[in-house]
Amino acid sequence: MQDKFEKKELKKKSVSLSDWYSDVILKAELADYGPAKGTMVIRPYGYAIWETIQKTLDGWFKAGGVQNAYFPLFIPMNLLQKEKSHVAGFSPELWVVTHGGGKELTEPLVVRPTSETIMYEMYKRWIKSWRDLPYLINQWNNVVRYELRTYLFLRTSEFLWQEGHTVHETEGQAMDMVFTALEWYRRVYEEVLAIPVIAGQKSESEKFAGAKVTYTVEALMPDGKALQGGTSHNLGQNFSKAFGLTFQGRDGKEEFAWQTSWGFSTRSMGGLFLAHGDDHGVVLPPKVAPIQVVIIPIQGGDSGATDLQVYVDQIAGDLEKANIRVHVDRREGQSTGRKFNDWEVKGVPLRFEIGPNEKVQKIVTMTKRNTGEKLVFSREDIATETGNQLEAIQNELYQVAQEFLQKNTFEVDNYDKFKEIMAGTRGLIKATWCENATCEAKIKEETKATTRVKPLDAPEVTDGKCIYCGKPANSIWYFGQSY
Amino acid sequence: MQDKFEKKELKKKSVSLSDWYSDVILKAELADYGPAKGTMVIRPYGYAIWETIQKTLDGWFKAGGVQNAYFPLFIPMNLLQKEKSHVAGFSPELWVVTHGGGKELTEPLVVRPTSETIMYEMYKRWIKSWRDLPYLINQWNNVVRYELRTYLFLRTSEFLWQEGHTVHETEGQAMDMVFTALEWYRRVYEEVLAIPVIAGQKSESEKFAGAKVTYTVEALMPDGKALQGGTSHNLGQNFSKAFGLTFQGRDGKEEFAWQTSWGFSTRSMGGLFLAHGDDHGVVLPPKVAPIQVVIIPIQGGDSGATDLQVYVDQIAGDLEKANIRVHVDRREGQSTGRKFNDWEVKGVPLRFEIGPNEKVQKIVTMTKRNTGEKLVFSREDIATETGNQLEAIQNELYQVAQEFLQKNTFEVDNYDKFKEIMAGTRGLIKATWCENATCEAKIKEETKATTRVKPLDAPEVTDGKCIYCGKPANSIWYFGQSY
Repeated sequence: MQDKFEKKELKKKSVSLSDWYSDVILKAELADYGPAKGTMVIRPYGYAIWETIQKTLDGWFKAGGVQNAYFPLFIPMNLLQKEKSHVAGFSPELWVVTHGGGKELTEPLVVRPTSETIMYEMYKRWIKSWRDLPYLINQWNNVVRYELRTYLFLRTSEFLWQEGHTVHETEGQAMDMVFTALEWYRRVYEEVLAIPVIAGQKSESEKFAGAKVTYTVEALMPDGKALQGGTSHNLGQNFSKAFGLTFQGRDGKEEFAWQTSWGFSTRSMGGLFLAHGDDHGVVLPPKVAPIQVVIIPIQGGDSGATDLQVYVDQIAGDLEKANIRVHVDRREGQSTGRKFNDWEVKGVPLRFEIGPNEKVQKIVTMTKRNTGEKLVFSREDIATETGNQLEAIQNELYQVAQEFLQKNTFEVDNYDKFKEIMAGTRGLIKATWCENATCEAKIKEETKATTRVKPLDAPEVTDGKCIYCGKPANSIWYFGQSY
Repeated sequence: MQDKFEKKELKKKSVSLSDWYSDVILKAELADYGPAKGTMVIRPYGYAIWETIQKTLDGWFKAGGVQNAYFPLFIPMNLLQKEKSHVAGFSPELWVVTHGGGKELTEPLVVRPTSETIMYEMYKRWIKSWRDLPYLINQWNNVVRYELRTYLFLRTSEFLWQEGHTVHETEGQAMDMVFTALEWYRRVYEEVLAIPVIAGQKSESEKFAGAKVTYTVEALMPDGKALQGGTSHNLGQNFSKAFGLTFQGRDGKEEFAWQTSWGFSTRSMGGLFLAHGDDHGVVLPPKVAPIQVVIIPIQGGDSGATDLQVYVDQIAGDLEKANIRVHVDRREGQSTGRKFNDWEVKGVPLRFEIGPNEKVQKIVTMTKRNTGEKLVFSREDIATETGNQLEAIQNELYQVAQEFLQKNTFEVDNYDKFKEIMAGTRGLIKATWCENATCEAKIKEETKATTRVKPLDAPEVTDGKCIYCGKPANSIWYFGQSY
């Protein structure tokens, strides 16, 4: 049935992940390079995925009592400098506005790399008493950080994200918030993006500039590198002390507030495309696919064309009624083969091919994008069966990713083995580490692997030894090379 | 019933609209001044209104086949300069980034004041043939324009908006899009914000920098000044020629594309607050009110407190089931009078006061924010009656604004009368004008009034005279001082 057409040549995922990735993002029309160095355009097909992620997270945030707001893009330089480790961490990445309205500004403005400083300067004006707490604010916005090299979604000068910033009476309440946000991130990866993650703590050297403790969800990519998926920070009283953010406590005394911040960005979409694609293009989990089912009508000559169209429209109508996102590809002057290819590159989970045969037999033939499997269902069961298949695909993608993670996670108690893995297939290495920054730095220097995460659910080891120095070490950490 | 409390002193709307406005925006916690000059923070209560506006417009856009995307914040200076009248118009308002990553940039980057140039540079890469048209893209984003003085929502260096940018085969199709967008804007003002507008064309001197023709919806504010509510531009081939945006036509020939752009911003919220507020605070139309009903339980002593709470919860539950946005003010340690005042300032359309008497009699007492009217309904009809009252309030606000517009619109054929009105109560003046820019400039100089709009539905005049120079003039224009 497949016509001849000039197939768009895609790079092979199996040969070079990074070449394939850049190629497929462009060909699937997910994104493109912007005119200024380091910038990216998110095209409609990519942006629709972001909208679905936003809607999911935003619903959870609101149910959790978090309110959205909007804070300014420009931060006066002196504000950014108030928390010392924060400004030290962000200084090399800043974009700075020096001119406005044709004149040089008296004080340069930083284009926000993150909004802690500008938000807390405002919080200070609004928060007076324990009655104002907890104060739970989120914003969906753009931030910029200087990047030398562009890698679509994963490393761009500007990206979209949400940043939650909360204020609490006690550190315990702040920690509850930190873990609530981390759990939202785990769920959006595992339940929506179909990517298993490891949730836990970052090391001192890897934590957010200005945080007391940073938590993360980490995912493993097909090239054996780890991706930091979203972070949630216990800021302690670091910023409240720097900004003078106090409140009157229940005992009438003025206290410094306890704070958290947590962010999830369009970087996650890079992980999504890397994780599930194949040599034919991206593969989208049904829950985030802008189009879940594409229907390609296949005319068997002129006779019966109208009848076939009616049959196709009715099927599409049934799916819409069942809240399934369906698109009928009615393009004229394009071969069926070309159409198959286009939707394959774009990773639409299910493709229906409907021709005269389907109509006569009252059936639907569908192909699963993730496995290539062909299935035939009776016309009358189509909405239910499609729903089942979409659910099955969502689960299958997660299973495959989960198996990959398991196969490529290595428990290692020998540094030679550690080096061998990092020089070879890579992956995640579970090892005990003494939590001394010198060992961490040496490991990074010698293997390019950094500490990724100390998992929340790991048991304490009683007589472990540091993988590097051999001294006593009672915590298990994951190591890996990272994006 | 009203306890004594220290009432927040509000400026009077009737005395000075601008003092009242700035005061009420802050006290209602809609927005606040940001740390950098000219910037604004949109607080959660204000942002929730913007989210409702977004959801409404975004639904209409998507139903109209418009897709969302995201383009970069930074525009290389050379791109902005490609369309000459565009750059000339925007030059005085630009914010410029000169440093990134600790180094001076080789080419300065403009922080987008609007996105025509960066979007069309990308469109050129993507659009090849008439088969790719119409190409309908929107983005929800932030833009910046230099402002000397800040006026919350109405004049700020940064604002949020949507900008639609479409590409068409013919100018006729582009014009259809221009009017479709203008109609979306008219509807959101009239049907959602309860503000009547006049839809029509801008004069040559008032049009968008780079447009062929600009269309607008204009509203009249209580101080007799006009507010430009949203604009829709026929860009003709101005940008397609500057950017080389061509497509292969149906006849195989390469043609320059026809384009439109249209924008609606958080400035509209300034109009909303100005239009409907009173001496007690803002008054929100039910369709955009984040809280449509506030319930204030009024305890009559300790006995029966739990019973009353159950009664209140059941009523709130009924309203939620009917998709009414309800909030129960359970704050302890705040007097009833203080609670009444807080929600009055915030403009919640309906306030329920529920005490032991209401419970015993199985009734609900409610007060309408816009009129102060008290109504009593039977408990069992509460969801239906509340829905009816919210609809009534929406209509009443529109009617009052509509009457104000009519009373303050003057048909004038005598320039002395024109000057007298503009020196007095102001308002909108309908007059014939010769469309000569010199007369327009003189009128502005002498009366501060500019041409606001040439209404779409105005009949052509056959023997009219220009209000300024007396020469033949066959078009009716609205004049007014503007925000």
